[in-house]
Amino acid sequence: MSQKPTRIGIVGCGSVMRGPYTRQIKLMQNKGIAVEVTRACDVAPEAQQTVRERFGDIPFSADYRAVVESDDVDVVLVLTAMPAHGPIARAALQAGKHVLVEKPMAVDLETAAELVELSKRSRGYLLPAPHVVLSPTYQAIWKRIHRGDIGQVLQARALYGWNGPSWGQWFYQPGGGPLFDLGVYNVISLTGLLGPAKRVTAMTATARPERVVDGEPMRVETEDSAHVLIEFDNSVLAVVTTGFTMQQYRCPAIEIYGSAGTIQMLGDDWDPEGYELWQNEVGAWQLYGETDPNWPWTDGLRHLIECIQGDTRPIITPEHGYHGLEIMIKAQEAGRDGQARAIESTFTPPSFFDEHEQLAKHLIHDRTNK
Amino acid sequence: MSQKPTRIGIVGCGSVMRGPYTRQIKLMQNKGIAVEVTRACDVAPEAQQTVRERFGDIPFSADYRAVVESDDVDVVLVLTAMPAHGPIARAALQAGKHVLVEKPMAVDLETAAELVELSKRSRGYLLPAPHVVLSPTYQAIWKRIHRGDIGQVLQARALYGWNGPSWGQWFYQPGGGPLFDLGVYNVISLTGLLGPAKRVTAMTATARPERVVDGEPMRVETEDSAHVLIEFDNSVLAVVTTGFTMQQYRCPAIEIYGSAGTIQMLGDDWDPEGYELWQNEVGAWQLYGETDPNWPWTDGLRHLIECIQGDTRPIITPEHGYHGLEIMIKAQEAGRDGQARAIESTFTPPSFFDEHEQLAKHLIHDRTNK
Amino acid sequence: MSQKPTRIGIVGCGSVMRGPYTRQIKLMQNKGIAVEVTRACDVAPEAQQTVRERFGDIPFSADYRAVVESDDVDVVLVLTAMPAHGPIARAALQAGKHVLVEKPMAVDLETAAELVELSKRSRGYLLPAPHVVLSPTYQAIWKRIHRGDIGQVLQARALYGWNGPSWGQWFYQPGGGPLFDLGVYNVISLTGLLGPAKRVTAMTATARPERVVDGEPMRVETEDSAHVLIEFDNSVLAVVTTGFTMQQYRCPAIEIYGSAGTIQMLGDDWDPEGYELWQNEVGAWQLYGETDPNWPWTDGLRHLIECIQGDTRPIITPEHGYHGLEIMIKAQEAGRDGQARAIESTFTPPSFFDEHEQLAKHLIHDRTNK
Amino acid sequence: MSQKPTRIGIVGCGSVMRGPYTRQIKLMQNKGIAVEVTRACDVAPEAQQTVRERFGDIPFSADYRAVVESDDVDVVLVLTAMPAHGPIARAALQAGKHVLVEKPMAVDLETAAELVELSKRSRGYLLPAPHVVLSPTYQAIWKRIHRGDIGQVLQARALYGWNGPSWGQWFYQPGGGPLFDLGVYNVISLTGLLGPAKRVTAMTATARPERVVDGEPMRVETEDSAHVLIEFDNSVLAVVTTGFTMQQYRCPAIEIYGSAGTIQMLGDDWDPEGYELWQNEVGAWQLYGETDPNWPWTDGLRHLIECIQGDTRPIITPEHGYHGLEIMIKAQEAGRDGQARAIESTFTPPSFFDEHEQLAKHLIHDRTNK
Repeated sequence: MSQKPTRIGIVGCGSVMRGPYTRQIKLMQNKGIAVEVTRACDVAPEAQQTVRERFGDIPFSADYRAVVESDDVDVVLVLTAMPAHGPIARAALQAGKHVLVEKPMAVDLETAAELVELSKRSRGYLLPAPHVVLSPTYQAIWKRIHRGDIGQVLQARALYGWNGPSWGQWFYQPGGGPLFDLGVYNVISLTGLLGPAKRVTAMTATARPERVVDGEPMRVETEDSAHVLIEFDNSVLAVVTTGFTMQQYRCPAIEIYGSAGTIQMLGDDWDPEGYELWQNEVGAWQLYGETDPNWPWTDGLRHLIECIQGDTRPIITPEHGYHGLEIMIKAQEAGRDGQARAIESTFTPPSFFDEHEQLAKHLIHDRTNK
Repeated sequence: MSQKPTRIGIVGCGSVMRGPYTRQIKLMQNKGIAVEVTRACDVAPEAQQTVRERFGDIPFSADYRAVVESDDVDVVLVLTAMPAHGPIARAALQAGKHVLVEKPMAVDLETAAELVELSKRSRGYLLPAPHVVLSPTYQAIWKRIHRGDIGQVLQARALYGWNGPSWGQWFYQPGGGPLFDLGVYNVISLTGLLGPAKRVTAMTATARPERVVDGEPMRVETEDSAHVLIEFDNSVLAVVTTGFTMQQYRCPAIEIYGSAGTIQMLGDDWDPEGYELWQNEVGAWQLYGETDPNWPWTDGLRHLIECIQGDTRPIITPEHGYHGLEIMIKAQEAGRDGQARAIESTFTPPSFFDEHEQLAKHLIHDRTNK
Repeated sequence: MSQKPTRIGIVGCGSVMRGPYTRQIKLMQNKGIAVEVTRACDVAPEAQQTVRERFGDIPFSADYRAVVESDDVDVVLVLTAMPAHGPIARAALQAGKHVLVEKPMAVDLETAAELVELSKRSRGYLLPAPHVVLSPTYQAIWKRIHRGDIGQVLQARALYGWNGPSWGQWFYQPGGGPLFDLGVYNVISLTGLLGPAKRVTAMTATARPERVVDGEPMRVETEDSAHVLIEFDNSVLAVVTTGFTMQQYRCPAIEIYGSAGTIQMLGDDWDPEGYELWQNEVGAWQLYGETDPNWPWTDGLRHLIECIQGDTRPIITPEHGYHGLEIMIKAQEAGRDGQARAIESTFTPPSFFDEHEQLAKHLIHDRTNK
Repeated sequence: MSQKPTRIGIVGCGSVMRGPYTRQIKLMQNKGIAVEVTRACDVAPEAQQTVRERFGDIPFSADYRAVVESDDVDVVLVLTAMPAHGPIARAALQAGKHVLVEKPMAVDLETAAELVELSKRSRGYLLPAPHVVLSPTYQAIWKRIHRGDIGQVLQARALYGWNGPSWGQWFYQPGGGPLFDLGVYNVISLTGLLGPAKRVTAMTATARPERVVDGEPMRVETEDSAHVLIEFDNSVLAVVTTGFTMQQYRCPAIEIYGSAGTIQMLGDDWDPEGYELWQNEVGAWQLYGETDPNWPWTDGLRHLIECIQGDTRPIITPEHGYHGLEIMIKAQEAGRDGQARAIESTFTPPSFFDEHEQLAKHLIHDRTNK
């Protein structure tokens, strides 16, 4: 059986396209997945040469509509600067395309809500990044927790930061910032593991008000560091720490504290390096190495293509993306006025149980997990 | 030269007296420090036997005033349940005694303020626990930061938790809780390293509403988990995570992120196990082992005795203790109403520089460190 | 029931007496074990003051016979320089005393054989150091191996070294050296775990021919580094690496490789820090923390006293000590002429099974473990 | 400038060709290095299909001479079972080809000596695997040692083992075994770092006499575990431990102990994961992460091609390969008769100093490093 190639149109041909997504596409092609890049677009005309070297002499445009509305595109891959994500994804959904949109799916909740609504009516799937729930290590941790291996979840921490990019001034302008760029991983990871959030507060700050970006000094106009507090069902509290403020760390990405044990994801949640599990009944730390050291954070594209070609629904949902965005935007608001806020949206978390497998019996009273 | 023994009166003869402080006193005596226990007090009459086995047949009372007002007591060691700390310390200061009071120094700010005021007029020193700033590892970290080894501090995290005591119902009643019992270490550590806090918010929760304590089921009436956000000068944000919710962890106690490196305290801040230092200019993690693996968290008593006998001022100040308490109490308030609060008190942080040593020049613009 | 104190006579009052064994004796006394030091001896007259400060004004002599032959001594503790161990232990056994002799029990096999023979006829127990088999971590590892948790043992490594003492010229003279001083731990550990050795070869060298010891330059006249190869039953090969050549390391003390897993002792075998266990069927490293971080390497003295007072046979046997010595002496010979040698002695290894517990069934064909 | 492609003929199309060397060749091609595979050979006819899928429809033969003598081959890549390495490499050199021969270069010293001689007269370079000296981490360690960062080298250990292949019966037949297959890495690493060996002894054993290989039970006819002792100049002793006996380990691959510090290679020497450095003057372990996590152990092929195209001499020399082989063969002999042996060959170790850089002055008296 020969599969007709799924045709990808790329909008935004910067560093994320040049490296990671190109590798992902080549990798799929090497594995025999029927996929091709048919169109590309970038506001910078010099990007055309980059595209040509990677995908041959395909139509290139400065206007995203040339991609989004093209008949020879099945999937629109949105890799632009953050503020453009929402409008392009909307146009693509309206045109009936499948959409993989890099994080955040939008920089305001209205646009994001519109995307979620559109995705219900559109022929196309909407896959908001990040795709951390596809990582084998993430899924192993999910199973451990939901099988009851650490008892009832009681508290959590997550961390993701670095020194921040030295390119892309928009990272430091409104609509940018480490929360949208980095913290979003932790937010999606935690809500995927613990379920929908109920309330949020935060402190945000600009610890380094001036930077040199793309060789030029600039004033930072977003937060560059944040601690976000999230309340889940069952009085479970988590904190997400993120910032363009960290040179290095030696801590787990995610720590989940339960009544009978602890589980910690090593590495970062965009690039897990295995996990550590403490169970009171074992009385030893168990170190599980990374099962897939080459798992790429661009794995959502493979997942989307497989769902399209296999006609199955993606594990990653627009509602989860929206929920994460609401948490982050309300965290930023709380960072400004110091007032905690209720989270209004909800979503159905993914399940990674094997067929017939169920939530551990002793967790069934847990209201989060009906 | 022969020193007249400094006479200690102990108020509260529970587990903390039986083990750690008894060891500390014996240790001092073995080292030839002139110190003796002359009086003790506990509401439980059976404690008298415990005292007798440790310190001989000294006067024992159920009423703390018998200790506090005694002529043959120089130092009152306050080791009772938390809510009694403040009143006893006050009475002891009023009687002109030196006071070491376990944490927290009081459970309300009014009493604590009164203690600070009293300590200014009293002949006696007031030493509020915890004594973490006396730890050699803590001081090594302080020096690293203030010598500029990680550049300008930008962000921080701290953690201290465990499953919680299975004894002492008051740990789970108003005036108890992990913030006063455990988080106080992190709060004192961070403010000692970063200076006075300006603002605080928090989420607090009761993740396990029922417990078995002293063999009996009880309803938990305090928070048993908390994440506290603290804003320092220069837009430095920290989070303190604490809870009677953690079985085990493998993370640093304290993480300080700077513009040129990271420093992390290993172990817990009541029992450090060395530190790790990343400096961009070195490009490697440097692992510094614990220099004093037997450093006891009761070290404040040794310090107090040495200050009394040597007639020098303690490094640990009532003002630092009050400042920590204000942070914790306002965190609890914020945990109730979701609203961040300004911190009104301030204090002069300890300095561990060698003589003539100064703050690293490139940190001098840092307003915290005038 | 009141126990008559067991009376200890100490021969050799250098650093090992001053610190570790004094602490051990005080510790026993604090625990209420009936034990007292009644006599001491050292060739250096100034040691008398040291003894007096620790144990009061007891008889002190320059001649070990004054201790060994005294009526008010039950246990002779031999802590002299290595070459004197054998003759003093012999005299003590001949006088019917119990003997704890520091390692090595003798520096030649003839003397050691005589000690073993004497111990069979003497009223006194002979306990040759080191006492590593008493460590809870050692015993936990022994159980893991003999319960079959790593399958059939196939190969092993052990390591113990440091920079070497800056005191005691005899460490660097014939009868000294790192094999007798340090490697002996590994040799006793491995034979305790794997059973009697059958053959040995080695390379030995003097990597630093000159040293400053006790403030004076000297020529090193023993090996200061060695790798010893040991063949056990069932074609199991082990290597012991030792030297006064190591500044620091970050490796396990002992590594045992089995057909279904690996077990590694952390720290050093004189001071274990827990162990790590890999089992293929678990697929994760399991980290077991040290159960008794304060376990002292002088623990043999406590064991000897308990055996005397409880009238039970010590776990540590003269035959095991002799076997270890034969391995070391033949390793030194092989180091000189490059020729492997058979080991002629044997011994019955200790067993740490709980009552009724037996060797794992799948190991029963293992001839070592009949 | 356009380079004419260097033409590779592959002899031996088993697992090592299918995976690692194919990736290496594709990687070079992706980087624009002018290289192509023009011929292949394997005794198994079904290998032709494998070759075709990777390199297109090139001439394929069962007879290695069809590759070795072909006019359209510049480089012969010898990837057969171990016993065939020597004869094929010889024929290739005689035909004037460049040769990369997998380890060991031969299974007897006579053949290996012939190869070394031939390589002096042949137009072709001879590159015996392994290529560990090309690893950036290896070179970093080399520089640390030779710049004097750990003082004078005093002693060393190395380890490389695993459970052994479940395919290829020849691994367990004469000419196979873990020493040739795995230990060779340690031998080449240590001699590269410490210089030529002077003497060797060993114990070798067959700890598991029966195995299932390629689905069939077989009797193991080589050693499956070995500890090899090596004496270097200046009384430096090292041990190499290897075996098809290890399920997992958590130890460094290589440990070098110096008079002022220790350096340890993490991971395995075929796949380093950075290194750890202790220096007494720093007083902390320094952890250097792997600079090139994707460094492939097949890197020798890239190096050979670059040397051919750039007309420079390879860093890897036939003499180093021969020296390593002499160590291993004499270790096997010593394993049989228990007698240490002199090593007769020598070689000039590689140098990784930057231009004008020299051996640390305080190491100059070190005779190894004239």
